[in-house]
Amino acid sequence: MQELRHFFETYRKQHPITGQPVGLYEPAEYIMNLGGKRFRPMLTFLGYQLFKDDLEKVLPIAYALEIFHNFSLVHDDIMDAAAIRRGQATVHTKWDVNTGILSGDLMLVKSYEYLAEFEEEDKIPQLLRVFSRVAREVCEGQQMDVDFESREDVQIEEYIRMIALKTSVLLATCLEMGAIAAGADEASVKHCYEVGCNIGIAFQLQDDILDTFGESQKVGKRIGGDIIQNKKTFLILKALELGTPQQKTKLQQLMTTLTTDANAKIKAVKDILQELDILRHAQEQKDHFRTLAFEHLEALDAPAAKKASLKAIMESLVKREA
Amino acid sequence: MQELRHFFETYRKQHPITGQPVGLYEPAEYIMNLGGKRFRPMLTFLGYQLFKDDLEKVLPIAYALEIFHNFSLVHDDIMDAAAIRRGQATVHTKWDVNTGILSGDLMLVKSYEYLAEFEEEDKIPQLLRVFSRVAREVCEGQQMDVDFESREDVQIEEYIRMIALKTSVLLATCLEMGAIAAGADEASVKHCYEVGCNIGIAFQLQDDILDTFGESQKVGKRIGGDIIQNKKTFLILKALELGTPQQKTKLQQLMTTLTTDANAKIKAVKDILQELDILRHAQEQKDHFRTLAFEHLEALDAPAAKKASLKAIMESLVKREA
Repeated sequence: MQELRHFFETYRKQHPITGQPVGLYEPAEYIMNLGGKRFRPMLTFLGYQLFKDDLEKVLPIAYALEIFHNFSLVHDDIMDAAAIRRGQATVHTKWDVNTGILSGDLMLVKSYEYLAEFEEEDKIPQLLRVFSRVAREVCEGQQMDVDFESREDVQIEEYIRMIALKTSVLLATCLEMGAIAAGADEASVKHCYEVGCNIGIAFQLQDDILDTFGESQKVGKRIGGDIIQNKKTFLILKALELGTPQQKTKLQQLMTTLTTDANAKIKAVKDILQELDILRHAQEQKDHFRTLAFEHLEALDAPAAKKASLKAIMESLVKREA
Repeated sequence: MQELRHFFETYRKQHPITGQPVGLYEPAEYIMNLGGKRFRPMLTFLGYQLFKDDLEKVLPIAYALEIFHNFSLVHDDIMDAAAIRRGQATVHTKWDVNTGILSGDLMLVKSYEYLAEFEEEDKIPQLLRVFSRVAREVCEGQQMDVDFESREDVQIEEYIRMIALKTSVLLATCLEMGAIAAGADEASVKHCYEVGCNIGIAFQLQDDILDTFGESQKVGKRIGGDIIQNKKTFLILKALELGTPQQKTKLQQLMTTLTTDANAKIKAVKDILQELDILRHAQEQKDHFRTLAFEHLEALDAPAAKKASLKAIMESLVKREA
């Protein structure tokens, strides 16, 4: 995996996002250089490797997907008024909102430009359609997330759909596009997509769990952030579904009342979640999607050694236990 | 021309930008419904018609280009803090900035989705490259425009490059993509591009002229807007190039001093422009690009009747005299 990451970084350094005017390009290259785990290129490589070995061919596609992901971060950070990303100033904080908008737009276009560099031209129309579909879905997921903030009646099913659109479909599409680029048959392409989509949802549920029930040291961030921000995570929605009228009322009060004592609020919310055994429900839900992902991996017609690499990255995505 | 516009509007009404969540799609459909002259689809049709007659085939491309144009309006209006567009509230005014960002992103993606619908798949890779190139250039032009606001040393050559990137290259690419879609040879495609690019620059110079020297009634808007906004148009840049040290100082003072008397400011600036015969220089510059455009049209190997339609739209773009 380390090797694949190095392979990607080498290509990326040979293809920086540069041009004129620099005020447009610098912010794009800045966010690309903030790092991150490069999960999307890795999944693109692994999807390709299941069927073909000449990995250098799929590099422009892997890069396109990573640029797209970073574009979405730049625009999301503006919408969420987030000042920090990967420990550094976000683009609109370091520059300004207008720069964030325009450099983000450029990145979205650059991602299509790299897509168009794939050598086998006859595959480009399908890749273009799949890529545009996921780009649209990511916008839809972000809008759902925004809508949920002001809604009191969010259902768990809708929440799962939102996290799928916001996160999982892109992971799914990385595997899918890797497989398409490698010329895999339709059934295999579909399995790849399902592997990515289900593991992505499991990953996001894991994220919800850790943010509330994790240990600060292991997770690497302060615990309870979602509670402080009144985020309607799976945990909260499940508690609202299962709770007694009293518990629901208490939870809704906690989520709408301004408090100065963050720790007291976190404890009060966690108490309700624990009374309702929400951690178990969340883990079951996570395991459900995790299992689906592994079943699709099993069903994939590809060499066992190649599947093992993919399995390893899937496990690393969901293994961190609360 | 009326017929072509109707042809386009019929298709557009059959393919509205709709979907879930509505908060994402409504603003996109709103801006598309504000109207506009649909120059870009018209040019796409005309580029196609020079070489082939089955116009319905090129509809998705014409639509993609119009959606792209409207995407750029939504994001530009945010950056320019413009409240009104085509007599109606801009998207970020009617909704909010975040909605403008996200719905704009969706529109950019939708434009690629329509591009991917072109029936002849073997032409899609080239169309994708050409489309992405112009999308990138439009971002570059917008950034140059932003940069110019805080620069005192803008050269006329740079200004022409900026208006080319911001406006003309898209008009050029409409003709070019029409020609590519129709299977025109490389030389013809290039001539189409040059027709659009040069007529676009002439159009933009015409716009500069009319904003300062036009008659309010004929132009349909208040005269002197560029002067009030201290915009560094061709007229101003040429005056700064040709003026005496005294005239330059006066002009720079006028452009940096806050004034409550708009009419006095407009008159003072126009006086300097008239002393230097700037209108003549601007018209010469405009005619230069206009002539280039018609020369490339002349050189095009296509039926005279088809070229006449294109000529008519070109003339309508630049005919309005000050």
